[in-house]
Amino acid sequence: MNSDNGYTDHIVAVLVHNNPGVLSKVTSLVTRRGFNIDSISAGPTRQNDMFRLTIVVKGDDRSIEQIQKQLYKIIDVVKVVPINKNRMAGREICLIKVKASGKERHEMLQIISVFKANVVDVGTNGFIVEITGDSDKIDSFLALLEPHQIIDVARTGIVAMNRWDNPYN
Amino acid sequence: MNSDNGYTDHIVAVLVHNNPGVLSKVTSLVTRRGFNIDSISAGPTRQNDMFRLTIVVKGDDRSIEQIQKQLYKIIDVVKVVPINKNRMAGREICLIKVKASGKERHEMLQIISVFKANVVDVGTNGFIVEITGDSDKIDSFLALLEPHQIIDVARTGIVAMNRWDNPYN
Repeated sequence: MNSDNGYTDHIVAVLVHNNPGVLSKVTSLVTRRGFNIDSISAGPTRQNDMFRLTIVVKGDDRSIEQIQKQLYKIIDVVKVVPINKNRMAGREICLIKVKASGKERHEMLQIISVFKANVVDVGTNGFIVEITGDSDKIDSFLALLEPHQIIDVARTGIVAMNRWDNPYN
Repeated sequence: MNSDNGYTDHIVAVLVHNNPGVLSKVTSLVTRRGFNIDSISAGPTRQNDMFRLTIVVKGDDRSIEQIQKQLYKIIDVVKVVPINKNRMAGREICLIKVKASGKERHEMLQIISVFKANVVDVGTNGFIVEITGDSDKIDSFLALLEPHQIIDVARTGIVAMNRWDNPYN
Protein backbone atom coordinates (compact mmCIF):
# COMPACT_ATOMS: atom_id res chain seq x y z
CA MET A 1 0.00 0.00 0.00
CA ASN A 2 1.07 3.59 -0.46
CA SER A 3 1.18 5.82 2.54
CA ASP A 4 0.43 9.52 2.69
CA ASN A 5 4.04 10.65 2.68
CA GLY A 6 4.91 9.00 -0.61
CA TYR A 7 6.81 6.18 1.06
CA THR A 8 5.91 2.69 0.00
CA ASP A 9 6.03 -0.64 1.72
CA HIS A 10 9.14 -2.66 1.08
CA ILE A 11 9.43 -6.35 1.69
CA VAL A 12 12.71 -7.96 2.61
CA ALA A 13 13.43 -11.61 3.30
CA VAL A 14 16.25 -12.23 5.76
CA LEU A 15 17.88 -15.60 6.34
CA VAL A 16 19.51 -15.85 9.77
CA HIS A 17 21.20 -18.36 12.03
CA ASN A 18 18.81 -19.03 14.89
CA ASN A 19 21.16 -17.88 17.63
CA PRO A 20 19.76 -16.30 20.78
CA GLY A 21 18.98 -12.67 20.27
CA VAL A 22 19.22 -12.58 16.50
CA LEU A 23 15.58 -11.55 16.14
CA SER A 24 15.98 -8.66 18.51
CA LYS A 25 19.21 -7.63 16.77
CA VAL A 26 17.44 -7.46 13.41
CA THR A 27 14.37 -5.62 14.70
CA SER A 28 16.54 -3.20 16.71
CA LEU A 29 18.68 -2.38 13.70
CA VAL A 30 15.69 -1.65 11.50
CA THR A 31 14.09 0.46 14.23
CA ARG A 32 17.30 2.36 15.02
CA ARG A 33 17.49 3.34 11.37
CA GLY A 34 14.16 5.08 11.86
CA PHE A 35 11.94 2.59 10.11
CA ASN A 36 8.77 1.27 11.55
CA ILE A 37 8.08 -2.39 10.93
CA ASP A 38 4.66 -2.86 9.35
CA SER A 39 4.71 -6.59 9.86
CA ILE A 40 7.17 -9.33 10.60
CA SER A 41 6.93 -13.08 10.41
CA ALA A 42 9.65 -15.52 11.30
CA GLY A 43 9.71 -19.27 11.09
CA PRO A 44 12.16 -22.16 10.72
CA THR A 45 13.56 -23.25 7.37
CA ARG A 46 14.56 -26.75 6.30
CA GLN A 47 17.97 -26.21 7.87
CA ASN A 48 17.17 -26.57 11.54
CA ASP A 49 19.46 -23.83 12.72
CA MET A 50 18.23 -21.29 10.19
CA PHE A 51 15.30 -18.92 10.31
CA ARG A 52 13.71 -16.92 7.57
CA LEU A 53 12.17 -13.56 8.37
CA THR A 54 9.82 -11.65 6.13
CA ILE A 55 9.84 -8.00 7.11
CA VAL A 56 7.61 -5.25 5.73
CA VAL A 57 8.89 -1.71 6.30
CA LYS A 58 7.91 1.66 4.93
CA GLY A 59 10.58 3.82 3.36
CA ASP A 60 12.12 5.19 0.19
CA ASP A 61 14.22 3.00 -2.10
CA ARG A 62 17.53 4.41 -0.96
CA SER A 63 16.95 3.86 2.72
CA ILE A 64 15.90 0.29 2.09
CA GLU A 65 19.16 -0.34 0.29
CA GLN A 66 20.95 1.03 3.35
CA ILE A 67 19.03 -1.32 5.65
CA GLN A 68 19.99 -4.28 3.51
CA LYS A 69 23.66 -3.37 3.72
CA GLN A 70 23.46 -2.81 7.47
CA LEU A 71 21.74 -6.14 8.05
CA TYR A 72 24.74 -7.95 6.61
CA LYS A 73 26.83 -6.49 9.43
CA ILE A 74 24.94 -8.68 11.90
CA ILE A 75 27.01 -11.84 12.11
CA ASP A 76 24.03 -14.20 12.17
CA VAL A 77 22.53 -12.72 9.02
CA VAL A 78 23.27 -15.04 6.12
CA LYS A 79 21.29 -13.55 3.27
CA VAL A 80 19.11 -10.55 2.57
CA VAL A 81 16.76 -10.77 -0.40
CA PRO A 82 14.64 -7.84 -1.57
CA ILE A 83 11.20 -8.99 -2.66
CA ASN A 84 9.78 -7.39 -5.79
CA LYS A 85 6.16 -6.59 -5.02
CA ASN A 86 5.14 -6.88 -8.66
CA ARG A 87 6.65 -10.30 -9.07
CA MET A 88 6.11 -12.04 -5.79
CA ALA A 89 3.99 -14.73 -4.26
CA GLY A 90 2.77 -13.17 -1.02
CA ARG A 91 0.34 -14.65 1.45
CA GLU A 92 -0.99 -13.87 4.86
CA ILE A 93 -3.26 -15.72 7.25
CA CYS A 94 -5.71 -14.14 9.62
CA LEU A 95 -7.76 -15.58 12.47
CA ILE A 96 -10.84 -13.63 13.53
CA LYS A 97 -12.91 -14.31 16.62
CA VAL A 98 -16.32 -12.79 16.08
CA LYS A 99 -19.60 -12.84 17.98
CA ALA A 100 -22.58 -14.19 16.13
CA SER A 101 -25.95 -15.42 17.30
CA GLY A 102 -29.31 -16.18 15.73
CA LYS A 103 -29.87 -14.67 12.31
CA GLU A 104 -26.42 -13.10 12.35
CA ARG A 105 -24.80 -16.54 12.17
CA HIS A 106 -26.43 -17.35 8.88
CA GLU A 107 -25.49 -14.01 7.35
CA MET A 108 -21.91 -14.40 8.48
CA LEU A 109 -21.59 -17.91 7.10
CA GLN A 110 -22.54 -16.54 3.70
CA ILE A 111 -19.77 -13.95 3.79
CA ILE A 112 -17.35 -16.65 4.94
CA SER A 113 -18.33 -18.87 2.04
CA VAL A 114 -17.96 -16.11 -0.57
CA PHE A 115 -14.42 -15.37 0.64
CA LYS A 116 -13.55 -19.07 0.77
CA ALA A 117 -12.69 -18.57 4.43
CA ASN A 118 -13.02 -21.40 6.97
CA VAL A 119 -14.73 -21.70 10.30
CA VAL A 120 -12.13 -23.30 12.59
CA ASP A 121 -14.06 -23.06 15.85
CA VAL A 122 -17.73 -22.69 16.76
CA GLY A 123 -18.97 -21.59 20.17
CA THR A 124 -22.47 -20.88 21.38
CA ASN A 125 -21.72 -17.18 21.01
CA GLY A 126 -19.70 -17.06 17.82
CA PHE A 127 -16.99 -18.31 15.51
CA ILE A 128 -13.28 -18.30 14.90
CA VAL A 129 -12.72 -17.81 11.18
CA GLU A 130 -9.53 -18.42 9.22
CA ILE A 131 -8.84 -16.56 5.98
CA THR A 132 -5.80 -16.81 3.74
CA GLY A 133 -4.81 -14.50 0.90
CA ASP A 134 -3.10 -11.28 0.08
CA SER A 135 -3.47 -8.37 2.49
CA ASP A 136 -6.14 -6.63 0.39
CA LYS A 137 -8.43 -9.65 0.49
CA ILE A 138 -8.06 -9.89 4.26
CA ASP A 139 -8.73 -6.16 4.65
CA SER A 140 -11.94 -6.46 2.60
CA PHE A 141 -13.10 -9.43 4.61
CA LEU A 142 -12.48 -7.63 7.90
CA ALA A 143 -14.35 -4.59 6.62
CA LEU A 144 -17.41 -6.75 5.89
CA LEU A 145 -17.32 -8.21 9.39
CA GLU A 146 -16.98 -4.74 10.89
CA PRO A 147 -20.71 -4.33 11.72
CA HIS A 148 -20.43 -7.45 13.87
CA GLN A 149 -18.66 -7.68 17.18
CA ILE A 150 -15.07 -8.63 16.47
CA ILE A 151 -13.42 -9.92 19.65
CA ASP A 152 -9.92 -10.67 18.40
CA VAL A 153 -7.91 -10.42 15.18
CA ALA A 154 -4.58 -12.20 14.69
CA ARG A 155 -2.66 -11.72 11.43
CA THR A 156 0.59 -13.40 10.62
CA GLY A 157 2.06 -10.63 8.57
CA ILE A 158 3.02 -11.37 4.97
CA VAL A 159 5.30 -14.17 3.93
CA ALA A 160 6.59 -13.58 0.45
CA MET A 161 9.05 -14.90 -2.08
CA ASN A 162 10.03 -13.83 -5.56
CA ARG A 163 8.28 -15.65 -8.38
CA TRP A 164 10.16 -17.97 -10.69
CA ASP A 165 10.34 -15.34 -13.43
CA ASN A 166 11.94 -12.81 -11.07
CA PRO A 167 15.60 -12.06 -11.72
CA TYR A 168 16.26 -11.75 -7.95
CA ASN A 169 15.54 -15.44 -7.49
CA MET B 1 6.36 -30.07 20.26
CA ASN B 2 8.38 -31.36 23.17
CA SER B 3 12.07 -30.76 23.15
CA ASP B 4 14.80 -32.95 24.57
CA ASN B 5 15.25 -31.04 27.79
CA GLY B 6 11.64 -31.43 28.93
CA TYR B 7 10.78 -27.85 28.10
CA THR B 8 7.71 -27.31 26.02
CA ASP B 9 6.65 -24.65 23.60
CA HIS B 10 4.54 -21.90 25.04
CA ILE B 11 2.43 -19.57 22.98
CA VAL B 12 1.73 -16.04 24.09
CA ALA B 13 -0.34 -13.39 22.36
CA VAL B 14 0.80 -9.83 23.02
CA LEU B 15 -1.23 -6.77 22.13
CA VAL B 16 0.94 -3.66 21.71
CA HIS B 17 0.72 -0.05 20.63
CA ASN B 18 2.53 0.23 17.32
CA ASN B 19 5.11 2.74 18.47
CA PRO B 20 8.60 2.71 16.96
CA GLY B 21 10.78 0.12 18.59
CA VAL B 22 8.08 -1.80 20.41
CA LEU B 23 8.84 -4.99 18.49
CA SER B 24 12.51 -4.85 19.34
CA LYS B 25 11.67 -4.08 22.98
CA VAL B 26 9.50 -7.20 23.19
CA THR B 27 11.96 -9.50 21.42
CA SER B 28 14.87 -8.11 23.45
CA LEU B 29 13.07 -8.68 26.73
CA VAL B 30 12.24 -12.28 25.88
CA THR B 31 15.79 -12.92 24.71
CA ARG B 32 17.40 -11.24 27.71
CA ARG B 33 15.40 -13.56 29.94
CA GLY B 34 17.21 -16.42 28.27
CA PHE B 35 14.44 -17.66 26.05
CA ASN B 36 14.84 -18.41 22.42
CA ILE B 37 11.96 -17.41 20.21
CA ASP B 38 10.77 -20.39 18.15
CA SER B 39 8.59 -18.26 15.94
CA ILE B 40 7.03 -14.83 15.93
CA SER B 41 4.36 -13.26 13.82
CA ALA B 42 3.12 -9.73 14.10
CA GLY B 43 0.40 -7.96 12.20
CA PRO B 44 -2.04 -5.08 12.57
CA THR B 45 -5.35 -5.40 14.41
CA ARG B 46 -8.60 -3.57 13.68
CA GLN B 47 -7.39 -0.66 15.80
CA ASN B 48 -4.92 0.96 13.47
CA ASP B 49 -2.37 1.84 16.10
CA MET B 50 -2.37 -1.62 17.65
CA PHE B 51 -0.40 -4.73 16.77
CA ARG B 52 -0.90 -8.28 17.86
CA LEU B 53 2.11 -10.55 18.22
CA THR B 54 1.99 -14.31 18.52
CA ILE B 55 5.21 -15.54 20.08
CA VAL B 56 6.28 -19.16 20.54
CA VAL B 57 9.00 -19.72 23.13
CA LYS B 58 10.38 -22.77 24.83
CA GLY B 59 10.52 -22.87 28.62
CA ASP B 60 9.01 -24.20 31.82
CA ASP B 61 5.69 -22.93 33.12
CA ARG B 62 7.18 -20.75 35.83
CA SER B 63 9.52 -18.87 33.51
CA ILE B 64 6.72 -18.17 31.09
CA GLU B 65 4.70 -16.62 33.89
CA GLN B 66 7.71 -14.42 34.62
CA ILE B 67 7.95 -13.33 30.99
CA GLN B 68 4.28 -12.40 30.96
CA LYS B 69 4.73 -10.21 34.03
CA GLN B 70 7.86 -8.59 32.62
CA LEU B 71 6.15 -7.83 29.32
CA TYR B 72 3.60 -5.67 31.12
CA LYS B 73 6.45 -3.43 32.22
CA ILE B 74 6.91 -2.30 28.62
CA ILE B 75 4.73 0.79 28.33
CA ASP B 76 3.43 -0.07 24.87
CA VAL B 77 2.28 -3.53 25.91
CA VAL B 78 -1.47 -3.45 26.42
CA LYS B 79 -2.36 -7.08 27.01
CA VAL B 80 -0.61 -10.42 27.34
CA VAL B 81 -2.72 -13.54 26.79
CA PRO B 82 -1.39 -17.05 27.34
CA ILE B 83 -2.67 -19.43 24.68
CA ASN B 84 -3.75 -22.86 25.86
CA LYS B 85 -2.33 -25.30 23.34
CA ASN B 86 -5.08 -27.83 24.00
CA ARG B 87 -7.85 -25.37 23.40
CA MET B 88 -6.61 -23.10 20.69
CA ALA B 89 -7.15 -22.41 17.04
CA GLY B 90 -3.64 -22.26 15.61
CA ARG B 91 -2.65 -21.85 12.00
CA GLU B 92 0.48 -21.30 10.00
CA ILE B 93 1.13 -20.64 6.34
CA CYS B 94 4.14 -21.81 4.42
CA LEU B 95 5.39 -20.96 0.95
CA ILE B 96 7.75 -23.44 -0.67
CA LYS B 97 9.72 -22.85 -3.85
CA VAL B 98 10.63 -26.23 -5.27
CA LYS B 99 12.28 -27.41 -8.48
CA ALA B 100 10.25 -29.79 -10.60
CA SER B 101 10.54 -30.85 -14.19
CA GLY B 102 9.18 -33.62 -16.38
CA LYS B 103 7.77 -36.60 -14.53
CA GLU B 104 8.59 -34.98 -11.19
CA ARG B 105 5.97 -32.29 -11.80
CA HIS B 106 3.17 -34.80 -12.01
CA GLU B 107 4.25 -36.60 -8.87
CA MET B 108 4.51 -33.36 -6.96
CA LEU B 109 1.09 -32.16 -8.06
CA GLN B 110 -0.36 -35.32 -6.55
CA ILE B 111 1.24 -34.65 -3.17
CA ILE B 112 0.02 -31.04 -3.39
CA SER B 113 -3.52 -32.21 -4.06
CA VAL B 114 -3.56 -34.71 -1.18
CA PHE B 115 -2.47 -32.00 1.26
CA LYS B 116 -5.00 -29.53 -0.15
CA ALA B 117 -2.07 -27.21 -0.83
CA ASN B 118 -2.13 -24.67 -3.67
CA VAL B 119 0.23 -23.89 -6.49
CA VAL B 120 0.58 -20.10 -6.43
CA ASP B 121 3.29 -19.77 -9.10
CA VAL B 122 4.50 -21.96 -11.95
CA GLY B 123 7.82 -21.51 -13.70
CA THR B 124 9.49 -23.59 -16.37
CA ASN B 125 11.68 -25.10 -13.65
CA GLY B 126 9.29 -25.50 -10.76
CA PHE B 127 6.51 -24.29 -8.51
CA ILE B 128 5.78 -22.09 -5.56
CA VAL B 129 3.35 -23.95 -3.31
CA GLU B 130 1.26 -22.53 -0.49
CA ILE B 131 0.12 -24.73 2.38
CA THR B 132 -1.94 -23.74 5.42
CA GLY B 133 -2.52 -25.73 8.58
CA ASP B 134 -1.05 -26.60 11.91
CA SER B 135 2.70 -26.96 12.20
CA ASP B 136 2.61 -30.78 12.10
CA LYS B 137 0.81 -30.80 8.77
CA ILE B 138 3.35 -28.40 7.31
CA ASP B 139 6.24 -30.47 8.67
CA SER B 140 4.82 -33.63 7.06
CA PHE B 141 4.34 -31.88 3.75
CA LEU B 142 7.90 -30.55 3.78
CA ALA B 143 9.21 -34.02 4.61
CA LEU B 144 7.47 -35.44 1.53
CA LEU B 145 9.01 -32.77 -0.67
CA GLU B 146 12.44 -33.43 0.81
CA PRO B 147 13.63 -35.72 -2.04
CA HIS B 148 13.04 -32.82 -4.43
CA GLN B 149 15.14 -29.72 -4.68
CA ILE B 150 13.67 -27.19 -2.28
CA ILE B 151 14.95 -23.70 -3.13
CA ASP B 152 13.24 -21.63 -0.48
CA VAL B 153 10.89 -22.12 2.47
CA ALA B 154 9.04 -19.26 4.13
CA ARG B 155 6.84 -19.94 7.16
CA THR B 156 4.82 -17.31 8.96
CA GLY B 157 5.10 -18.80 12.39
CA ILE B 158 1.91 -19.72 14.22
CA VAL B 159 -0.95 -17.35 14.82
CA ALA B 160 -3.18 -18.64 17.54
CA MET B 161 -6.11 -17.70 19.69
CA ASN B 162 -8.00 -19.44 22.46
CA ARG B 163 -11.14 -21.27 21.41
CA TRP B 164 -14.57 -20.10 22.51
CA ASP B 165 -14.77 -22.74 25.21
CA ASN B 166 -11.46 -21.61 26.73
CA PRO B 167 -11.74 -19.83 30.08
CA TYR B 168 -8.84 -17.47 29.14
CA ASN B 169 -10.98 -15.92 26.43
